[in-house]
Amino acid sequence: MEMGLSGIRIILVEPAGPLNVGSVARVMKNMGLEQLILVNPRCDYLGEEARNMAVHAGDILDKAQVVPSLPDALVGCQRAIATTAQNRGLPTNLENPRNALPWLLDHPSALIFGREDRGLTNSELNYAQRFVRIPSTEVYPSLNLAQGVAICCYELYQEATQNLRQTPSLTPNFFCTDTPRASLEILEGYYQHLEDVLLKIEYLYPHTALRRMEKFRRLYNRAYPTPEEVALLRGILRQVEWAIALKGEK
Amino acid sequence: MEMGLSGIRIILVEPAGPLNVGSVARVMKNMGLEQLILVNPRCDYLGEEARNMAVHAGDILDKAQVVPSLPDALVGCQRAIATTAQNRGLPTNLENPRNALPWLLDHPSALIFGREDRGLTNSELNYAQRFVRIPSTEVYPSLNLAQGVAICCYELYQEATQNLRQTPSLTPNFFCTDTPRASLEILEGYYQHLEDVLLKIEYLYPHTALRRMEKFRRLYNRAYPTPEEVALLRGILRQVEWAIALKGEK
Repeated sequence: MEMGLSGIRIILVEPAGPLNVGSVARVMKNMGLEQLILVNPRCDYLGEEARNMAVHAGDILDKAQVVPSLPDALVGCQRAIATTAQNRGLPTNLENPRNALPWLLDHPSALIFGREDRGLTNSELNYAQRFVRIPSTEVYPSLNLAQGVAICCYELYQEATQNLRQTPSLTPNFFCTDTPRASLEILEGYYQHLEDVLLKIEYLYPHTALRRMEKFRRLYNRAYPTPEEVALLRGILRQVEWAIALKGEK
Repeated sequence: MEMGLSGIRIILVEPAGPLNVGSVARVMKNMGLEQLILVNPRCDYLGEEARNMAVHAGDILDKAQVVPSLPDALVGCQRAIATTAQNRGLPTNLENPRNALPWLLDHPSALIFGREDRGLTNSELNYAQRFVRIPSTEVYPSLNLAQGVAICCYELYQEATQNLRQTPSLTPNFFCTDTPRASLEILEGYYQHLEDVLLKIEYLYPHTALRRMEKFRRLYNRAYPTPEEVALLRGILRQVEWAIALKGEK
């Protein structure tokens, strides 16, 4: 694929600062990124403040998409990385932007940034396959949103334009493969199906479903399955449903 | 010398935007830099707008030094790098931040940023020994001042803290986690159990079992599960066995 940066969306979840959104638009244009998606923005992202900060990137603001929730922003994406300030019980280590972000290049993909004050919720984090933390001091680890976006866009642009990657890629082998991976909708379809079956067999109960399902989401997200593998997994679920129904009829 | 980041001054020449100066203070603190010098500032860098953007880095603003000209800001420095958007007749090539900035570490040194609108004059550029240009698109090369500072501070911080950089680990970050992973016996126990259940529900048949199970082994091996996760997966299998048995008894 020869899409480089053009397949990457920058997703801001509930941004509250118009100055931030304007600055994000500017640095996106500086760094060759075009698709801005705002999940339920809590500010006037087309107003004067945002436009002043965007300077010559008003077009990025004008064509920004607004959606009501993170899954809507991810439709069609194959890869998603979330940025986070802390490891809030995530099962994997947080990765460095330089190591993780190149994985987004050449794919329909998303880089997700949380709210200025509270970041992303745990359930939002679950939509991502990998997690990035921008290195910073313990004294004051929390970066301004627009500066965090700037650093990530800079890393993406450098990687996209610097084909002379002198250092061996740190991307783990199985992420480097050309094998097509299941889209996030296909995965979501599997999770919904899994949850249905687990409720049916009383492995899950409605009040425990969410937290338990979180664990399975993380496990399968880590495996980064192919569409064929998801089809196999759903085949098991259908067969379980069939076996239960059949026995019930006897 | 063991001064790392502490000898580096960030110099802003005639900054006009208080929001920019506040944001610069914030990212300096994020990235472990402390000395801010303002050359003839054209804004209220201690006012409300600057402080709002600085958030928890008001101390960097409070102790910022103000001087009338660039040479005053450079007194005592051994090394100086200037940032610039274009090569305006400079005698040397512009360098990438990643290549040039580490040279400032461990020395009394300066990183110089020009005016928001016009950058640095030629005579100001002459005070620097090296010149950095942040890579950006031709369509819109000019970065916001605070975002440019953020990118440079990030590069400095990464270089200062990543002393182990000479041997890039080939182990991806997310495998380096301290979380204990399931032993091979534990995994094998799961695969046997999975195979049993899949045969029972007639998803597998004896003659297809081996090849199918290979696919599941690969999938779960890639996810590199913890013992807890394997326990959850086996819990599902037991519950499937229970559901089938129960229905069969009805």
